[in-house]
Amino acid sequence: MEQSFLAYLRGRCRSLPQVAVGIGDDAAVITPDSGALIACTDQIIDGVDFVSAEHALADAGYKAMAINLSDIAAMGAVARSALVTLALPKQKATQIAGQVYEGILEAAEEFQVAIAGGDLSTYDGPLSITITLLGHVPVGSAWLRSGAKEQDAVLVTGNVGGSILGRHLRPVPRVALAAELRELVEVHAAIDISDGLSLDLDRLCAASGVGIEFDTASIPIHDDAILLAEQTGRSPFEHAWSDGEDFELILTMSQADADLALQSSCGYELTQIGKTIGRTGLWKREGTKLVRLSPQGYMH
Amino acid sequence: MEQSFLAYLRGRCRSLPQVAVGIGDDAAVITPDSGALIACTDQIIDGVDFVSAEHALADAGYKAMAINLSDIAAMGAVARSALVTLALPKQKATQIAGQVYEGILEAAEEFQVAIAGGDLSTYDGPLSITITLLGHVPVGSAWLRSGAKEQDAVLVTGNVGGSILGRHLRPVPRVALAAELRELVEVHAAIDISDGLSLDLDRLCAASGVGIEFDTASIPIHDDAILLAEQTGRSPFEHAWSDGEDFELILTMSQADADLALQSSCGYELTQIGKTIGRTGLWKREGTKLVRLSPQGYMH
Repeated sequence: MEQSFLAYLRGRCRSLPQVAVGIGDDAAVITPDSGALIACTDQIIDGVDFVSAEHALADAGYKAMAINLSDIAAMGAVARSALVTLALPKQKATQIAGQVYEGILEAAEEFQVAIAGGDLSTYDGPLSITITLLGHVPVGSAWLRSGAKEQDAVLVTGNVGGSILGRHLRPVPRVALAAELRELVEVHAAIDISDGLSLDLDRLCAASGVGIEFDTASIPIHDDAILLAEQTGRSPFEHAWSDGEDFELILTMSQADADLALQSSCGYELTQIGKTIGRTGLWKREGTKLVRLSPQGYMH
Repeated sequence: MEQSFLAYLRGRCRSLPQVAVGIGDDAAVITPDSGALIACTDQIIDGVDFVSAEHALADAGYKAMAINLSDIAAMGAVARSALVTLALPKQKATQIAGQVYEGILEAAEEFQVAIAGGDLSTYDGPLSITITLLGHVPVGSAWLRSGAKEQDAVLVTGNVGGSILGRHLRPVPRVALAAELRELVEVHAAIDISDGLSLDLDRLCAASGVGIEFDTASIPIHDDAILLAEQTGRSPFEHAWSDGEDFELILTMSQADADLALQSSCGYELTQIGKTIGRTGLWKREGTKLVRLSPQGYMH
Protein backbone atom coordinates (compact mmCIF):
# COMPACT_ATOMS: atom_id res chain seq x y z
CA MET A 1 0.00 0.00 0.00
CA GLU A 2 2.83 2.38 0.80
CA GLN A 3 3.61 3.99 -2.56
CA SER A 4 0.03 4.68 -3.62
CA PHE A 5 -0.95 5.93 -0.18
CA LEU A 6 2.08 8.23 -0.09
CA ALA A 7 1.08 9.65 -3.45
CA TYR A 8 -2.39 10.33 -2.04
CA LEU A 9 -0.88 11.93 1.06
CA ARG A 10 1.40 14.20 -0.92
CA GLY A 11 -1.72 15.54 -2.57
CA ARG A 12 -3.54 16.05 0.72
CA CYS A 13 -0.71 17.73 2.64
CA ARG A 14 -0.64 21.45 2.13
CA SER A 15 2.79 22.73 1.34
CA LEU A 16 3.96 25.12 4.01
CA PRO A 17 7.09 27.25 3.76
CA GLN A 18 8.81 25.50 6.67
CA VAL A 19 9.24 22.27 4.69
CA ALA A 20 11.54 22.51 1.65
CA VAL A 21 11.34 18.79 0.83
CA GLY A 22 8.52 16.76 2.31
CA ILE A 23 7.07 13.29 1.85
CA GLY A 24 8.79 11.20 -0.81
CA ASP A 25 12.56 11.51 -0.33
CA ASP A 26 14.85 9.63 2.05
CA ALA A 27 14.34 12.36 4.64
CA ALA A 28 12.60 15.69 4.98
CA VAL A 29 14.44 18.97 4.52
CA ILE A 30 13.10 21.58 6.91
CA THR A 31 13.87 25.27 6.72
CA PRO A 32 15.43 26.17 10.04
CA ASP A 33 13.73 28.63 12.37
CA SER A 34 15.70 30.91 14.60
CA GLY A 35 16.34 29.70 18.12
CA ALA A 36 16.68 26.25 19.63
CA LEU A 37 15.03 23.22 18.08
CA ILE A 38 12.33 21.57 20.19
CA ALA A 39 11.47 17.93 19.51
CA CYS A 40 9.10 15.49 21.16
CA THR A 41 7.51 12.20 20.27
CA ASP A 42 4.45 10.39 21.59
CA GLN A 43 2.91 7.11 20.58
CA ILE A 44 -0.70 6.04 21.12
CA ILE A 45 -1.92 2.48 20.67
CA ASP A 46 -5.34 0.95 20.12
CA GLY A 47 -6.43 -0.76 23.33
CA VAL A 48 -4.08 1.31 25.48
CA ASP A 49 -4.69 4.98 24.68
CA PHE A 50 -7.91 4.73 22.69
CA VAL A 51 -10.34 2.00 21.67
CA SER A 52 -10.96 1.80 17.94
CA ALA A 53 -14.19 -0.16 18.45
CA GLU A 54 -15.64 2.79 20.36
CA HIS A 55 -13.97 5.86 18.87
CA ALA A 56 -13.66 7.31 15.39
CA LEU A 57 -10.17 6.67 14.01
CA ALA A 58 -9.98 10.33 13.01
CA ASP A 59 -10.23 11.14 16.73
CA ALA A 60 -7.25 8.88 17.43
CA GLY A 61 -5.28 10.71 14.75
CA TYR A 62 -6.29 14.05 16.19
CA LYS A 63 -5.33 12.93 19.68
CA ALA A 64 -1.86 11.80 18.53
CA MET A 65 -1.21 15.28 17.17
CA ALA A 66 -2.82 17.11 20.10
CA ILE A 67 -0.82 15.39 22.84
CA ASN A 68 2.42 16.27 21.05
CA LEU A 69 1.23 19.84 20.56
CA SER A 70 0.56 19.93 24.28
CA ASP A 71 4.17 18.90 24.97
CA ILE A 72 5.46 21.64 22.68
CA ALA A 73 3.17 24.18 24.37
CA ALA A 74 4.49 23.03 27.77
CA MET A 75 7.97 24.09 26.58
CA GLY A 76 6.67 27.53 25.60
CA ALA A 77 7.61 26.66 22.04
CA VAL A 78 5.95 26.85 18.62
CA ALA A 79 5.31 23.64 16.64
CA ARG A 80 6.23 23.70 12.95
CA SER A 81 6.44 20.25 11.41
CA ALA A 82 5.55 16.63 12.13
CA LEU A 83 6.71 13.13 11.19
CA VAL A 84 3.92 10.55 11.34
CA THR A 85 4.51 6.81 11.75
CA LEU A 86 1.64 4.34 11.58
CA ALA A 87 1.72 0.63 12.41
CA LEU A 88 -1.44 -0.70 10.78
CA PRO A 89 -3.34 -3.95 11.20
CA LYS A 90 -3.00 -5.87 7.92
CA GLN A 91 -6.72 -6.01 7.37
CA LYS A 92 -8.11 -2.77 5.91
CA ALA A 93 -4.75 -1.06 6.37
CA THR A 94 -5.29 1.60 3.71
CA GLN A 95 -8.78 2.41 4.91
CA ILE A 96 -7.57 2.73 8.52
CA ALA A 97 -4.63 4.91 7.48
CA GLY A 98 -6.96 7.19 5.55
CA GLN A 99 -9.29 7.64 8.51
CA VAL A 100 -6.46 8.26 10.98
CA TYR A 101 -4.96 10.84 8.63
CA GLU A 102 -8.25 12.76 8.52
CA GLY A 103 -7.74 13.66 12.18
CA ILE A 104 -4.01 14.24 11.79
CA LEU A 105 -4.57 16.61 8.86
CA GLU A 106 -7.35 18.41 10.73
CA ALA A 107 -5.01 19.13 13.65
CA ALA A 108 -2.15 20.00 11.29
CA GLU A 109 -4.33 22.57 9.56
CA GLU A 110 -5.70 23.98 12.82
CA PHE A 111 -2.24 24.47 14.35
CA GLN A 112 -0.33 25.29 11.14
CA VAL A 113 1.93 22.26 11.36
CA ALA A 114 3.40 20.78 8.16
CA ILE A 115 3.46 17.01 7.72
CA ALA A 116 7.10 16.61 6.66
CA GLY A 117 7.37 12.82 6.46
CA GLY A 118 6.88 9.55 8.24
CA ASP A 119 6.65 5.81 7.84
CA LEU A 120 3.95 3.18 7.30
CA SER A 121 3.99 -0.52 8.19
CA THR A 122 1.40 -3.26 8.27
CA TYR A 123 1.64 -6.04 10.84
CA ASP A 124 -0.24 -8.46 13.06
CA GLY A 125 -1.03 -6.03 15.81
CA PRO A 126 -3.20 -3.12 16.87
CA LEU A 127 -3.17 0.32 15.27
CA SER A 128 -0.32 2.41 16.65
CA ILE A 129 0.27 6.08 15.87
CA THR A 130 3.63 7.69 16.63
CA ILE A 131 4.14 11.36 15.94
CA THR A 132 7.33 13.37 16.27
CA LEU A 133 6.72 17.08 16.46
CA LEU A 134 9.42 19.65 15.76
CA GLY A 135 9.28 23.28 16.79
CA HIS A 136 11.40 26.13 18.01
CA VAL A 137 11.86 28.50 20.92
CA PRO A 138 14.28 31.39 21.51
CA VAL A 139 17.61 30.01 22.77
CA GLY A 140 17.72 29.65 26.54
CA SER A 141 14.04 30.38 27.08
CA ALA A 142 12.31 26.99 26.92
CA TRP A 143 9.97 26.39 29.87
CA LEU A 144 11.58 23.49 31.73
CA ARG A 145 10.23 21.39 34.57
CA SER A 146 13.29 22.34 36.57
CA GLY A 147 12.88 26.12 36.52
CA ALA A 148 10.48 26.71 39.44
CA LYS A 149 11.73 28.99 42.22
CA GLU A 150 10.66 29.23 45.85
CA GLN A 151 7.62 31.44 46.39
CA ASP A 152 6.47 31.02 42.81
CA ALA A 153 2.75 31.12 42.14
CA VAL A 154 1.51 27.78 40.74
CA LEU A 155 -1.19 28.08 38.08
CA VAL A 156 -3.15 25.56 36.07
CA THR A 157 -5.00 26.14 32.80
CA GLY A 158 -8.63 25.12 32.28
CA ASN A 159 -10.42 22.59 34.48
CA VAL A 160 -9.21 19.14 35.37
CA GLY A 161 -10.52 15.61 35.95
CA GLY A 162 -12.79 13.14 34.20
CA SER A 163 -11.25 13.43 30.74
CA ILE A 164 -11.86 9.69 30.27
CA LEU A 165 -15.52 10.52 29.60
CA GLY A 166 -14.41 11.59 26.11
CA ARG A 167 -12.42 14.82 26.36
CA HIS A 168 -9.13 12.89 26.23
CA LEU A 169 -9.71 12.16 22.52
CA ARG A 170 -10.07 15.77 21.52
CA PRO A 171 -7.87 17.64 23.96
CA VAL A 172 -7.31 21.32 23.33
CA PRO A 173 -3.54 21.75 23.41
CA ARG A 174 -2.80 25.05 25.12
CA VAL A 175 -0.86 26.43 22.20
CA ALA A 176 -2.57 29.83 22.00
CA LEU A 177 -2.55 30.37 25.76
CA ALA A 178 1.15 29.47 25.99
CA ALA A 179 1.94 31.97 23.24
CA GLU A 180 -0.02 34.71 25.05
CA LEU A 181 1.68 34.01 28.37
CA ARG A 182 5.08 34.06 26.70
CA GLU A 183 4.45 37.62 25.62
CA LEU A 184 3.01 38.71 28.94
CA VAL A 185 5.09 37.17 31.74
CA GLU A 186 8.20 35.18 32.55
CA VAL A 187 7.17 31.57 33.10
CA HIS A 188 9.70 29.81 35.35
CA ALA A 189 8.61 26.19 34.89
CA ALA A 190 5.89 24.26 33.07
CA ILE A 191 4.62 20.73 32.50
CA ASP A 192 1.54 19.40 30.79
CA ILE A 193 -0.88 17.14 32.66
CA SER A 194 -0.74 13.77 31.01
CA ASP A 195 -0.72 11.44 34.03
CA GLY A 196 -2.63 13.51 36.61
CA LEU A 197 -2.51 16.98 38.18
CA SER A 198 -0.84 15.92 41.42
CA LEU A 199 1.54 13.41 39.82
CA ASP A 200 2.77 15.78 37.12
CA LEU A 201 3.03 18.66 39.56
CA ASP A 202 5.06 16.37 41.85
CA ARG A 203 7.42 15.74 38.91
CA LEU A 204 7.80 19.46 38.29
CA CYS A 205 8.51 20.02 41.99
CA ALA A 206 11.06 17.19 42.09
CA ALA A 207 12.85 18.52 38.99
CA SER A 208 12.96 22.02 40.50
CA GLY A 209 13.87 20.94 44.03
CA VAL A 210 10.87 22.70 45.58
CA GLY A 211 7.59 21.73 47.16
CA ILE A 212 4.12 23.21 46.87
CA GLU A 213 1.64 24.46 49.37
CA PHE A 214 -1.74 23.85 47.77
CA ASP A 215 -4.85 25.86 48.12
CA THR A 216 -6.81 22.65 47.51
CA ALA A 217 -10.18 24.44 47.49
CA SER A 218 -9.09 26.41 44.43
CA ILE A 219 -8.34 23.41 42.18
CA PRO A 220 -10.60 23.94 39.14
CA ILE A 221 -12.69 20.76 38.95
CA HIS A 222 -14.08 19.93 35.52
CA ASP A 223 -17.79 19.10 35.16
CA ASP A 224 -16.67 15.73 33.78
CA ALA A 225 -15.02 14.96 37.14
CA ILE A 226 -18.36 15.60 38.86
CA LEU A 227 -20.20 13.38 36.36
CA LEU A 228 -17.59 10.66 36.66
CA ALA A 229 -17.70 10.79 40.46
CA GLU A 230 -21.39 9.85 40.31
CA GLN A 231 -20.38 6.62 38.56
CA THR A 232 -17.25 5.74 40.51
CA GLY A 233 -18.14 6.64 44.07
CA ARG A 234 -14.93 8.65 44.33
CA SER A 235 -15.13 12.40 44.93
CA PRO A 236 -14.90 14.98 42.13
CA PHE A 237 -11.80 16.29 43.93
CA GLU A 238 -10.12 12.88 43.76
CA HIS A 239 -10.72 12.76 40.02
CA ALA A 240 -9.34 16.27 39.54
CA TRP A 241 -6.35 15.36 41.71
CA SER A 242 -5.39 12.13 39.94
CA ASP A 243 -7.07 11.68 36.54
CA GLY A 244 -4.72 11.72 33.55
CA GLU A 245 -4.95 13.10 30.02
CA ASP A 246 -6.23 16.55 30.85
CA PHE A 247 -3.48 18.06 28.69
CA GLU A 248 -3.76 21.28 30.64
CA LEU A 249 -0.58 23.11 31.62
CA ILE A 250 0.84 23.65 35.10
CA LEU A 251 2.91 26.83 35.19
CA THR A 252 4.97 28.59 37.80
CA MET A 253 5.96 32.25 37.81
CA SER A 254 6.49 35.08 40.28
CA GLN A 255 3.37 36.14 42.21
CA ALA A 256 3.51 39.54 40.51
CA ASP A 257 3.50 37.89 37.08
CA ALA A 258 0.72 35.55 38.15
CA ASP A 259 -1.41 38.51 39.21
CA LEU A 260 -0.75 40.11 35.83
CA ALA A 261 -1.65 36.93 33.95
CA LEU A 262 -4.82 36.39 36.00
CA GLN A 263 -5.97 39.93 35.24
CA SER A 264 -5.17 39.67 31.53
CA SER A 265 -7.46 38.67 28.69
CA CYS A 266 -6.49 35.02 29.11
CA GLY A 267 -6.91 35.18 32.89
CA TYR A 268 -10.26 33.36 32.85
CA GLU A 269 -8.46 30.23 31.57
CA LEU A 270 -6.03 30.29 34.51
CA THR A 271 -6.38 29.39 38.19
CA GLN A 272 -3.80 29.78 40.92
CA ILE A 273 -3.76 26.57 42.97
CA GLY A 274 -0.89 27.27 45.35
CA LYS A 275 2.65 28.47 45.72
CA THR A 276 6.01 26.77 45.80
CA ILE A 277 7.89 26.38 49.08
CA GLY A 278 11.40 25.31 50.00
CA ARG A 279 10.24 22.11 51.69
CA THR A 280 9.90 19.39 49.04
CA GLY A 281 6.63 17.48 48.58
CA LEU A 282 2.96 18.37 48.17
CA TRP A 283 1.34 20.08 51.16
CA LYS A 284 -1.82 21.79 52.30
CA ARG A 285 -2.22 24.07 55.29
CA GLU A 286 -4.59 23.08 58.07
CA GLY A 287 -4.59 25.85 60.62
CA THR A 288 -0.93 26.47 61.39
CA LYS A 289 0.24 23.01 60.26
CA LEU A 290 1.31 21.73 56.87
CA VAL A 291 -0.24 18.33 56.05
CA ARG A 292 1.46 16.18 53.44
CA LEU A 293 -0.54 15.05 50.37
CA SER A 294 0.21 12.05 48.16
CA PRO A 295 0.62 12.47 44.44
CA GLN A 296 -1.66 10.14 42.50
CA GLY A 297 -2.16 9.43 38.84
CA TYR A 298 -1.48 7.10 35.99
CA MET A 299 1.78 5.22 36.55
CA HIS A 300 3.23 3.66 33.40
CA MET B 1 8.20 0.76 34.12
CA GLU B 2 8.56 4.10 32.43
CA GLN B 3 9.93 6.33 35.22
CA SER B 4 12.56 3.93 36.53
CA PHE B 5 13.67 2.92 33.05
CA LEU B 6 13.97 6.58 32.04
CA ALA B 7 16.13 7.22 35.09
CA TYR B 8 18.35 4.32 34.01
CA LEU B 9 18.50 5.66 30.45
CA ARG B 10 19.45 9.16 31.54
CA GLY B 11 22.44 7.58 33.22
CA ARG B 12 23.40 5.55 30.18
CA CYS B 13 23.06 8.29 27.56
CA ARG B 14 26.21 10.33 27.20
CA SER B 15 25.54 14.02 27.19
CA LEU B 16 26.59 15.56 23.90
CA PRO B 17 26.73 19.29 23.25
CA GLN B 18 23.97 19.18 20.63
CA VAL B 19 21.30 18.42 23.23
CA ALA B 20 20.69 21.15 25.80
CA VAL B 21 17.78 19.35 27.50
CA GLY B 22 17.39 15.63 26.89
CA ILE B 23 15.31 12.81 28.34
CA GLY B 24 13.01 13.80 31.17
CA ASP B 25 11.21 17.00 30.16
CA ASP B 26 8.09 17.45 28.01
CA ALA B 27 10.30 17.77 24.93
CA ALA B 28 13.97 17.90 24.05
CA VAL B 29 15.80 21.17 23.49
CA ILE B 30 18.39 20.79 20.75
CA THR B 31 21.09 23.32 19.98
CA PRO B 32 20.58 24.30 16.35
CA ASP B 33 23.25 23.53 13.77
CA SER B 34 23.82 25.79 10.83
CA GLY B 35 22.02 24.88 7.61
CA ALA B 36 18.74 23.13 6.94
CA LEU B 37 17.27 20.61 9.35
CA ILE B 38 17.06 17.04 8.05
CA ALA B 39 14.55 14.68 9.67
CA CYS B 40 13.55 11.11 8.96
CA THR B 41 11.74 8.35 10.77
CA ASP B 42 11.69 4.58 10.33
CA GLN B 43 9.91 1.90 12.27
CA ILE B 44 10.86 -1.78 12.49
CA ILE B 45 8.57 -4.45 13.90
CA ASP B 46 9.18 -7.95 15.23
CA GLY B 47 7.93 -10.46 12.68
CA VAL B 48 8.12 -7.96 9.82
CA ASP B 49 11.63 -6.46 9.81
CA PHE B 50 13.37 -8.83 12.21
CA VAL B 51 12.52 -11.98 14.15
CA SER B 52 13.17 -11.72 17.88
CA ALA B 53 13.17 -15.50 18.26
CA GLU B 54 16.18 -15.71 15.92
CA HIS B 55 18.06 -12.45 16.43
CA ALA B 56 19.54 -10.67 19.40
CA LEU B 57 17.34 -7.74 20.42
CA ALA B 58 20.43 -5.53 20.50
CA ASP B 59 20.76 -6.19 16.75
CA ALA B 60 17.19 -5.00 16.22
CA GLY B 61 18.02 -1.81 18.13
CA TYR B 62 21.17 -1.33 16.09
CA LYS B 63 19.26 -1.89 12.86
CA ALA B 64 16.63 0.70 13.77
CA MET B 65 19.37 3.29 14.20
CA ALA B 66 21.38 2.18 11.16
CA ILE B 67 18.52 2.36 8.66
CA ASN B 68 17.76 5.91 9.76
CA LEU B 69 21.46 6.80 9.57
CA SER B 70 21.41 5.43 6.03
CA ASP B 71 18.52 7.78 5.14
CA ILE B 72 20.43 10.75 6.54
CA ALA B 73 23.57 9.70 4.62
CA ALA B 74 21.46 9.44 1.45
CA MET B 75 20.65 13.14 1.88
CA GLY B 76 24.34 13.99 2.19
CA ALA B 77 23.57 15.18 5.72
CA VAL B 78 25.05 14.69 9.18
CA ALA B 79 22.96 13.02 11.91
CA ARG B 80 23.01 14.66 15.33
CA SER B 81 20.19 13.48 17.59
CA ALA B 82 17.56 10.79 17.85
CA LEU B 83 14.15 10.24 19.43
CA VAL B 84 13.44 6.61 20.24
CA THR B 85 9.95 5.15 20.64
CA LEU B 86 9.42 1.57 21.76
CA ALA B 87 6.16 -0.40 21.81
CA LEU B 88 6.95 -3.32 24.11
CA PRO B 89 5.18 -6.63 24.70
CA LYS B 90 3.81 -6.53 28.26
CA GLN B 91 5.75 -9.59 29.30
CA LYS B 92 9.39 -8.82 30.16
CA ALA B 93 8.96 -5.27 28.87
CA THR B 94 11.83 -3.78 30.89
CA GLN B 95 14.22 -6.59 29.98
CA ILE B 96 13.37 -6.24 26.28
CA ALA B 97 13.76 -2.46 26.40
CA GLY B 98 17.16 -2.83 28.03
CA GLN B 99 18.40 -5.24 25.37
CA VAL B 100 17.09 -3.14 22.48
CA TYR B 101 18.74 -0.06 23.95
CA GLU B 102 22.11 -1.83 24.04
CA GLY B 103 22.14 -1.82 20.24
CA ILE B 104 20.69 1.68 19.99
CA LEU B 105 23.34 3.08 22.33
CA GLU B 106 26.10 1.21 20.49
CA ALA B 107 25.07 2.84 17.19
CA ALA B 108 24.59 6.21 18.89
CA GLU B 109 28.12 6.06 20.25
CA GLU B 110 29.61 4.86 16.96
CA PHE B 111 27.98 7.64 14.92
CA GLN B 112 28.06 10.39 17.56
CA VAL B 113 24.29 10.73 17.77
CA ALA B 114 22.70 11.97 20.99
CA ILE B 115 19.56 10.25 22.29
CA ALA B 116 17.44 13.33 22.92
CA GLY B 117 14.16 11.76 23.96
CA GLY B 118 11.45 9.29 23.07
CA ASP B 119 8.48 7.36 24.36
CA LEU B 120 7.79 3.92 25.85
CA SER B 121 4.55 1.93 25.85
CA THR B 122 3.63 -1.62 26.75
CA TYR B 123 0.83 -3.39 24.90
CA ASP B 124 -0.49 -6.69 23.55
CA GLY B 125 1.62 -6.81 20.43
CA PRO B 126 5.07 -7.42 19.02
CA LEU B 127 8.14 -5.31 19.77
CA SER B 128 8.19 -2.21 17.58
CA ILE B 129 11.06 0.29 17.40
CA THR B 130 10.51 3.72 15.85
CA ILE B 131 13.41 6.12 15.60
CA THR B 132 13.34 9.70 14.40
CA LEU B 133 16.75 10.99 13.44
CA LEU B 134 17.57 14.69 13.15
CA GLY B 135 20.54 16.12 11.34
CA HIS B 136 21.65 19.03 9.22
CA VAL B 137 23.00 19.91 5.81
CA PRO B 138 24.07 23.23 4.24
CA VAL B 139 20.98 25.04 2.92
CA GLY B 140 20.12 24.07 -0.65
CA SER B 141 22.63 21.23 -0.86
CA ALA B 142 20.72 18.14 0.30
CA TRP B 143 21.09 15.20 -2.08
CA LEU B 144 17.56 14.68 -3.41
CA ARG B 145 16.15 11.84 -5.48
CA SER B 146 15.07 14.41 -8.03
CA GLY B 147 18.47 15.94 -8.81
CA ALA B 148 19.85 13.55 -11.44
CA LYS B 149 20.73 15.07 -14.82
CA GLU B 150 21.03 13.46 -18.23
CA GLN B 151 24.43 11.87 -18.85
CA ASP B 152 25.16 11.55 -15.14
CA ALA B 153 27.30 8.64 -14.03
CA VAL B 154 25.35 6.27 -11.75
CA LEU B 155 27.37 4.78 -8.89
CA VAL B 156 26.57 2.35 -6.12
CA THR B 157 28.45 1.87 -2.85
CA GLY B 158 29.62 -1.55 -1.64
CA ASN B 159 28.14 -4.82 -2.94
CA VAL B 160 24.49 -5.73 -3.15
CA GLY B 161 22.16 -8.71 -2.73
CA GLY B 162 21.53 -11.44 -0.18
CA SER B 163 21.40 -9.18 2.89
CA ILE B 164 18.65 -11.41 4.31
CA LEU B 165 21.38 -13.93 5.24
CA GLY B 166 22.15 -11.65 8.18
CA ARG B 167 23.76 -8.44 6.95
CA HIS B 168 20.41 -6.62 7.08
CA LEU B 169 20.58 -6.63 10.89
CA ARG B 170 23.93 -4.89 11.06
CA PRO B 171 24.01 -2.71 7.98
CA VAL B 172 26.88 -0.25 7.68
CA PRO B 173 25.23 3.09 7.01
CA ARG B 174 27.38 4.95 4.48
CA VAL B 175 27.86 7.93 6.74
CA ALA B 176 31.65 8.24 6.36
CA LEU B 177 31.62 7.66 2.61
CA ALA B 178 28.85 10.23 2.10
CA ALA B 179 30.89 12.77 4.07
CA GLU B 180 34.00 12.08 1.95
CA LEU B 181 32.06 12.38 -1.31
CA ARG B 182 30.51 15.63 -0.17
CA GLU B 183 33.98 17.14 0.16
CA LEU B 184 35.22 15.70 -3.11
CA VAL B 185 32.48 16.01 -5.74
CA GLU B 186 29.04 17.44 -6.46
CA VAL B 187 26.49 14.67 -6.02
CA HIS B 188 23.38 15.38 -8.10
CA ALA B 189 21.00 12.78 -6.69
CA ALA B 190 21.05 9.98 -4.13
CA ILE B 191 18.85 7.30 -2.58
CA ASP B 192 19.61 4.46 -0.22
CA ILE B 193 18.76 0.88 -1.19
CA SER B 194 16.05 -0.29 1.17
CA ASP B 195 13.71 -2.11 -1.20
CA GLY B 196 16.13 -3.31 -3.92
CA LEU B 197 18.77 -1.84 -6.25
CA SER B 198 16.57 -1.73 -9.34
CA LEU B 199 13.43 -0.61 -7.52
CA ASP B 200 15.10 2.22 -5.63
CA LEU B 201 17.05 3.30 -8.70
CA ASP B 202 13.77 3.33 -10.63
CA ARG B 203 12.36 5.67 -7.96
CA LEU B 204 15.35 7.99 -8.29
CA CYS B 205 14.97 8.01 -12.08
CA ALA B 206 11.23 8.68 -11.85
CA ALA B 207 11.80 11.58 -9.42
CA SER B 208 14.47 13.05 -11.70
CA GLY B 209 12.63 12.47 -14.99
CA VAL B 210 15.49 10.46 -16.48
CA GLY B 211 16.22 6.84 -17.34
CA ILE B 212 19.32 4.75 -16.92
CA GLU B 213 21.38 2.72 -19.33
CA PHE B 214 22.87 -0.05 -17.18
CA ASP B 215 26.18 -1.73 -17.58
CA THR B 216 24.60 -4.81 -15.97
CA ALA B 217 27.89 -6.75 -15.92
CA SER B 218 29.35 -4.15 -13.58
CA ILE B 219 26.73 -4.46 -10.83
CA PRO B 220 28.76 -5.40 -7.72
CA ILE B 221 27.23 -8.66 -6.53
CA HIS B 222 27.71 -9.45 -2.85
CA ASP B 223 29.04 -12.88 -1.81
CA ASP B 224 25.80 -13.28 0.15
CA ALA B 225 23.85 -13.07 -3.13
CA ILE B 226 25.93 -15.97 -4.48
CA LEU B 227 25.37 -18.00 -1.32
CA LEU B 228 21.66 -17.25 -1.31
CA ALA B 229 21.36 -18.17 -4.99
CA GLU B 230 22.54 -21.68 -4.14
CA GLN B 231 19.52 -22.00 -1.83
CA THR B 232 16.88 -20.28 -3.93
CA GLY B 233 17.65 -21.42 -7.46
CA ARG B 234 17.58 -17.81 -8.61
CA SER B 235 20.75 -16.25 -10.00
CA PRO B 236 23.16 -14.12 -7.95
CA PHE B 237 22.36 -11.29 -10.39
CA GLU B 238 18.66 -11.55 -9.66
CA HIS B 239 19.36 -11.24 -5.95
CA ALA B 240 21.63 -8.23 -6.49
CA TRP B 241 18.98 -6.70 -8.75
CA SER B 242 16.00 -7.08 -6.46
CA ASP B 243 16.95 -7.90 -2.85
CA GLY B 244 16.14 -5.23 -0.29
CA GLU B 245 17.87 -3.92 2.81
CA ASP B 246 21.35 -3.46 1.40
CA PHE B 247 21.41 0.08 2.76
CA GLU B 248 24.01 1.00 0.20
CA LEU B 249 23.73 4.32 -1.60
CA ILE B 250 22.97 4.97 -5.26
CA LEU B 251 24.53 8.25 -6.37
CA THR B 252 24.56 10.26 -9.56
CA MET B 253 27.11 12.90 -10.56
CA SER B 254 28.89 14.15 -13.68
CA GLN B 255 31.17 11.62 -15.36
CA ALA B 256 34.17 13.81 -14.52
CA ASP B 257 33.22 13.80 -10.83
CA ALA B 258 32.61 10.05 -10.97
CA ASP B 259 36.08 9.49 -12.39
CA LEU B 260 37.51 11.64 -9.61
CA ALA B 261 35.57 9.73 -6.94
CA LEU B 262 36.53 6.35 -8.35
CA GLN B 263 40.22 7.32 -8.29
CA SER B 264 40.04 8.73 -4.76
CA SER B 265 40.81 6.97 -1.49
CA CYS B 266 37.16 5.89 -1.19
CA GLY B 267 37.05 4.71 -4.80
CA TYR B 268 37.32 1.04 -3.88
CA GLU B 269 33.92 1.29 -2.18
CA LEU B 270 32.27 2.65 -5.33
CA THR B 271 31.22 1.07 -8.62
CA GLN B 272 29.81 2.78 -11.67
CA ILE B 273 26.84 0.75 -12.91
CA GLY B 274 25.62 2.93 -15.76
CA LYS B 275 24.68 6.41 -16.87
CA THR B 276 21.46 8.36 -16.98
CA ILE B 277 19.72 8.97 -20.29
CA GLY B 278 16.83 11.15 -21.41
CA ARG B 279 14.56 8.20 -22.15
CA THR B 280 12.79 7.19 -18.91
CA GLY B 281 13.00 3.64 -17.59
CA LEU B 282 15.72 1.10 -16.92
CA TRP B 283 17.64 -0.11 -19.97
CA LYS B 284 20.61 -2.17 -21.04
CA ARG B 285 22.37 -2.10 -24.42
CA GLU B 286 22.42 -5.24 -26.55
CA GLY B 287 24.42 -4.46 -29.66
CA THR B 288 22.88 -1.27 -31.02
CA LYS B 289 19.53 -1.74 -29.28
CA LEU B 290 18.31 -0.68 -25.85
CA VAL B 291 16.40 -3.45 -24.05
CA ARG B 292 14.02 -2.50 -21.28
CA LEU B 293 14.53 -3.98 -17.81
CA SER B 294 11.90 -4.34 -15.08
CA PRO B 295 12.53 -2.92 -11.64
CA GLN B 296 12.02 -5.52 -8.94
CA GLY B 297 12.17 -5.44 -5.20
CA TYR B 298 10.23 -5.35 -1.99
CA MET B 299 6.85 -3.67 -2.50
CA HIS B 300 5.18 -2.53 0.73
